[in-house]
Amino acid sequence: MLLLRSIRGFSSNRSITWLACVPFALFGLGVFNLSAHAADLPDLTPNFLANQLWLLIAAVLVIFMNAGFAMVEAGMCRQKNAVNILSKNLFVFTLAVTAYWFIGFQIMYKADWVIPGVLKFGGLFFDPTVTAEMVTTPDTLVPSVDFLFQAAFAGTAATIVSGLVAERIKFGEFVVFSLILTAFIYPIAGSWQWNGDGWLAQKGFIDFAGSTLVHSVGAWAGLVGAIALGPRIGKFVGGKAQALPGHNMAIATLGCLILWIGWYGFNAGSVLAMNETVPYVAVTTTLAAAGGAIGATIISTLCSGKPDLTMIINGILAGLVSITAGCDGVAMWAAWLIGLIGGAIVVFSVAFIDGLNIDDPVGAFSVHGTCGIWGTLAVGLFNTDAGLFAGHGFNQLGVQALGCIAYAVFVVVTCWITWKIIGACFGGIRVSESEEISGLDIGEHGMEAYPDFASAGN
Amino acid sequence: MLLLRSIRGFSSNRSITWLACVPFALFGLGVFNLSAHAADLPDLTPNFLANQLWLLIAAVLVIFMNAGFAMVEAGMCRQKNAVNILSKNLFVFTLAVTAYWFIGFQIMYKADWVIPGVLKFGGLFFDPTVTAEMVTTPDTLVPSVDFLFQAAFAGTAATIVSGLVAERIKFGEFVVFSLILTAFIYPIAGSWQWNGDGWLAQKGFIDFAGSTLVHSVGAWAGLVGAIALGPRIGKFVGGKAQALPGHNMAIATLGCLILWIGWYGFNAGSVLAMNETVPYVAVTTTLAAAGGAIGATIISTLCSGKPDLTMIINGILAGLVSITAGCDGVAMWAAWLIGLIGGAIVVFSVAFIDGLNIDDPVGAFSVHGTCGIWGTLAVGLFNTDAGLFAGHGFNQLGVQALGCIAYAVFVVVTCWITWKIIGACFGGIRVSESEEISGLDIGEHGMEAYPDFASAGN
Amino acid sequence: MLLLRSIRGFSSNRSITWLACVPFALFGLGVFNLSAHAADLPDLTPNFLANQLWLLIAAVLVIFMNAGFAMVEAGMCRQKNAVNILSKNLFVFTLAVTAYWFIGFQIMYKADWVIPGVLKFGGLFFDPTVTAEMVTTPDTLVPSVDFLFQAAFAGTAATIVSGLVAERIKFGEFVVFSLILTAFIYPIAGSWQWNGDGWLAQKGFIDFAGSTLVHSVGAWAGLVGAIALGPRIGKFVGGKAQALPGHNMAIATLGCLILWIGWYGFNAGSVLAMNETVPYVAVTTTLAAAGGAIGATIISTLCSGKPDLTMIINGILAGLVSITAGCDGVAMWAAWLIGLIGGAIVVFSVAFIDGLNIDDPVGAFSVHGTCGIWGTLAVGLFNTDAGLFAGHGFNQLGVQALGCIAYAVFVVVTCWITWKIIGACFGGIRVSESEEISGLDIGEHGMEAYPDFASAGN
Repeated sequence: MLLLRSIRGFSSNRSITWLACVPFALFGLGVFNLSAHAADLPDLTPNFLANQLWLLIAAVLVIFMNAGFAMVEAGMCRQKNAVNILSKNLFVFTLAVTAYWFIGFQIMYKADWVIPGVLKFGGLFFDPTVTAEMVTTPDTLVPSVDFLFQAAFAGTAATIVSGLVAERIKFGEFVVFSLILTAFIYPIAGSWQWNGDGWLAQKGFIDFAGSTLVHSVGAWAGLVGAIALGPRIGKFVGGKAQALPGHNMAIATLGCLILWIGWYGFNAGSVLAMNETVPYVAVTTTLAAAGGAIGATIISTLCSGKPDLTMIINGILAGLVSITAGCDGVAMWAAWLIGLIGGAIVVFSVAFIDGLNIDDPVGAFSVHGTCGIWGTLAVGLFNTDAGLFAGHGFNQLGVQALGCIAYAVFVVVTCWITWKIIGACFGGIRVSESEEISGLDIGEHGMEAYPDFASAGN
Repeated sequence: MLLLRSIRGFSSNRSITWLACVPFALFGLGVFNLSAHAADLPDLTPNFLANQLWLLIAAVLVIFMNAGFAMVEAGMCRQKNAVNILSKNLFVFTLAVTAYWFIGFQIMYKADWVIPGVLKFGGLFFDPTVTAEMVTTPDTLVPSVDFLFQAAFAGTAATIVSGLVAERIKFGEFVVFSLILTAFIYPIAGSWQWNGDGWLAQKGFIDFAGSTLVHSVGAWAGLVGAIALGPRIGKFVGGKAQALPGHNMAIATLGCLILWIGWYGFNAGSVLAMNETVPYVAVTTTLAAAGGAIGATIISTLCSGKPDLTMIINGILAGLVSITAGCDGVAMWAAWLIGLIGGAIVVFSVAFIDGLNIDDPVGAFSVHGTCGIWGTLAVGLFNTDAGLFAGHGFNQLGVQALGCIAYAVFVVVTCWITWKIIGACFGGIRVSESEEISGLDIGEHGMEAYPDFASAGN
Repeated sequence: MLLLRSIRGFSSNRSITWLACVPFALFGLGVFNLSAHAADLPDLTPNFLANQLWLLIAAVLVIFMNAGFAMVEAGMCRQKNAVNILSKNLFVFTLAVTAYWFIGFQIMYKADWVIPGVLKFGGLFFDPTVTAEMVTTPDTLVPSVDFLFQAAFAGTAATIVSGLVAERIKFGEFVVFSLILTAFIYPIAGSWQWNGDGWLAQKGFIDFAGSTLVHSVGAWAGLVGAIALGPRIGKFVGGKAQALPGHNMAIATLGCLILWIGWYGFNAGSVLAMNETVPYVAVTTTLAAAGGAIGATIISTLCSGKPDLTMIINGILAGLVSITAGCDGVAMWAAWLIGLIGGAIVVFSVAFIDGLNIDDPVGAFSVHGTCGIWGTLAVGLFNTDAGLFAGHGFNQLGVQALGCIAYAVFVVVTCWITWKIIGACFGGIRVSESEEISGLDIGEHGMEAYPDFASAGN
């Protein structure tokens, strides 16, 4: 009977079942030989211990950000799509880890096979020689913690996309896109800068923890998806944006605070060691979040007369994204100011994206894209070693702008092609009109998020 | 007036008030003498500092798992029982800590008084000489952090039971069972393996972080309770399982992600030191969680046609439980595969338990019991030093099976007796039919979880 | 058009817009010169690394407490005020960080300009010379992590106030009060003890992690606000307290567990170093939380016949507040007992505050004020070096009482004046009767927390 139902399942949900093949196909690439233990362990120095411990904790904090993203996105969307949003966030992180483990990590950081400056591929990380005992030198990171930290970053890029395409994308098609993003697009883009040999790194581009490399990459990928999908039914009436309020502000607020503490792992962990810079980065991150909330609250109160909770939330996130590129190299006052400006920008950006009739349900492009760009440019203004306001001229600002443009072009082009191919293979990426109206929870997952509660009937 | 109401309260809620006596009785065992400070402190070596710091953080992560269990269980049950489930999870952890502090810790790890191979009891841990200054040697764990980490594990075993007996057990009777479990049953079982002298440890049984010692022990204890209670009203109609959907998928998803990060403390903390194995364990744990989600999602989609969010959640938890026994000693590919198989198993196990007409409201036995056994056996297959697939024959696999059976028999017998004695003392362990229908929140606690929301009327 | 709406917004929400000026005015005080890097870095010793790392993690845990406070307070209040409560908790922390950074930190810990024993002010911390490289000596804390940890404490004091004034205070006026509290009142009070030269420190007052300095300071500030506001409509009928049940017990329980783990940062972080005392403090904190839950559950069950979930939550918090003053210097049994008594006290205190017809919606004064005082006095009873029960006489108990009284008087007087001035400037601190009845979410923020759910109509 299970077999019979399986066959029916196969035909009724084609994309999910295609998906089923992917991990097995990937898995087939690996040989089932077991690992040999490396023999000689160096002494564990204080620096070694502190570095591994801090990076491990930072990785845990970044992984916890998945809970933050899930709560913010679900809370800011409607009840009828909550299961779908929660499922996307939960499942996509597990796929991102898998895809990044098989392919992405080696593209991003190894260089056995290279199209110079564009693609570096070092084989599968799925490497049987990586074991607990593999410590090569006492003062560097062990491969395992390095991988874990980077995989968590890859998951972040994928989850940003989720917000932009929410409430109308098919589950299986989104899942396939996420696999391609984390296995290929994000790692190739990342290798330009975080692999020491990358062309942008050699040009002197600065993006300490990923305002551009993670946040704007995810935002551009999602924006292309949002445009390909078109707006949700009822979002624009006569070209004017309508409010489709989120269903659960309690979990949205919780998600914002989880993201805030997760960002200490994201930014301060990007030092990739434990030293005196780590707590300093934590302070600039905190001040930018504070500035972001204040900026967004002031601007949104001036514009609408009342402080909107979703704008406080997005203001905090905007401040955090804005400081991500420069968190290690700006003064404390500059960090607060970068956040404040980021918080102000996000309010105008939301209105601007609405004005373009692009439907970004949770403001993800404004938070991660617009503020990702602002934060990257802010390095060229405020960095104490290279910024304009530190008397170093416009050179760094130019390099920062170049990086922003390069990432935008690369991600927009590759993701547009990817969305179109997925759409062509699986019969479109958008759910049917009737499914969208009744909610994706029933249509995509056959269940409700809150079946014991009566709906408000709107 | 308080006194009058107290007397009425005493008669109306007998079991809770019996309970009231327990901590006081235990407390009476301790003498109120104050601690003497140990004089000579050794130098704090780097290893000492890193070990204490990591174990403390790991303990905090494991304690945070209580929030994960509470949210998963409450979210997957019905609204009318939410207060009861939340109360159980919150209160039982405080009792587990207390009982384990008084009695359990000394049974599990000390050996002053021994029935050889069965019971070791070293007096009460409630030992006035344990103070902040008590550091015996510079490279070992201080007693306080060791106790805290182990107490958090004891709480985990107790909270697994909660899921299996949810939506029909009396609050006070559950509380009494939890005290006995954490003071006696879990520590005795644990001492077989984690106390170096235990008989299973000497046979070569491997259960690194507790797939069997914690997860299957909790699952067997709960299964016996679920059988003793019988199924919830309406769960089986004509022998066929009916869906009683959970009321809040947002908090269930959040709980799953909290458990995920808590598991880094659970597994990587079980190294009981900070070294290069710690981040490696974090990676195998991550890959198994990813594999579990993928396995469960594929199988449940093949079976039912749509990806079910509760199966993604249980798949992640299944992957995590499955890797717990072998997380330190398997290759990365094996970790992912162990998780994938665990995720597939959990789907079939849920159907199998339903088929037996045993009512496990949140699938706790399938996650912690079935996958606990699978994870323990998987050590015999994949462990790089002893596993079948590493060319070491069937010997280890046999020892692993022996351990699984020994724990099953011991826990089933002792818990069956315990549930029966509690039922006999307090007039049954199950709430009345009318209370079950109207919900345990009103019946057991006199309050509602969401009084401002209208019910869906189902 | 934005400009037009801005002007309208300005006139319709006076207090928020006044607020808008504050950060800019403060900002104007700072000079936009950039930081000079300190040149000579000392070697990073093991102690240095462990100290910074632990304090950073502790600061993250304390910052996470904001999520706990937000969830507990929102969950224990009514649905119609949820957005307001969430906004207060979120926004106030960002203001607290900003105000404490500009002014508070220097008042509390520096001493360039002194009214002896009362006020110490060392200029703005907003100091351009504070950079990542500023490490003065290898074994102390870097300024950045020290500031971050202390700023998180300041935020805690502010958020306690929020609970006492919930469901009836205007948003903007609360925000202004929080700025004054964290910039001036809390730092001045804190300097008496935690600045080594403070008069209470010199008298031998002991408050290790802030039962009085943080918790009772916040509680007194809020109590004065609650009295100034008067009770919520419908809270007291004929002088008798009515139940106004909280709307979401799931998030309240989650918040309690988040606070619990956050307290490990709060208490064990207050060691301000990593050593063998840190895990010991974590154990006393755990035992007190367990004791608090047991004490409150027993007493509330005896009084009302059924275990009330809100009392389990408040019992845990009561235990945690009670151990905060003495967590480093009491035996384990004393920690559990201090928590148990704290948990019992909180039940009676809630009834007592109700009896005074003071409306404390979430029991914040009972938890943080009453138990803050109890915890401070308990040091005089149980401290192993100075307590009455350790044979050291009544001397310490007297000093502890003096400290409690001094803080109560100072905070009550300064906060009463502050609330009155704010009320006078902005036309009262309480929302209109019609706004209170329809809910502050619409009135203050123009949005609902759960628009897709039907209300229960009560």
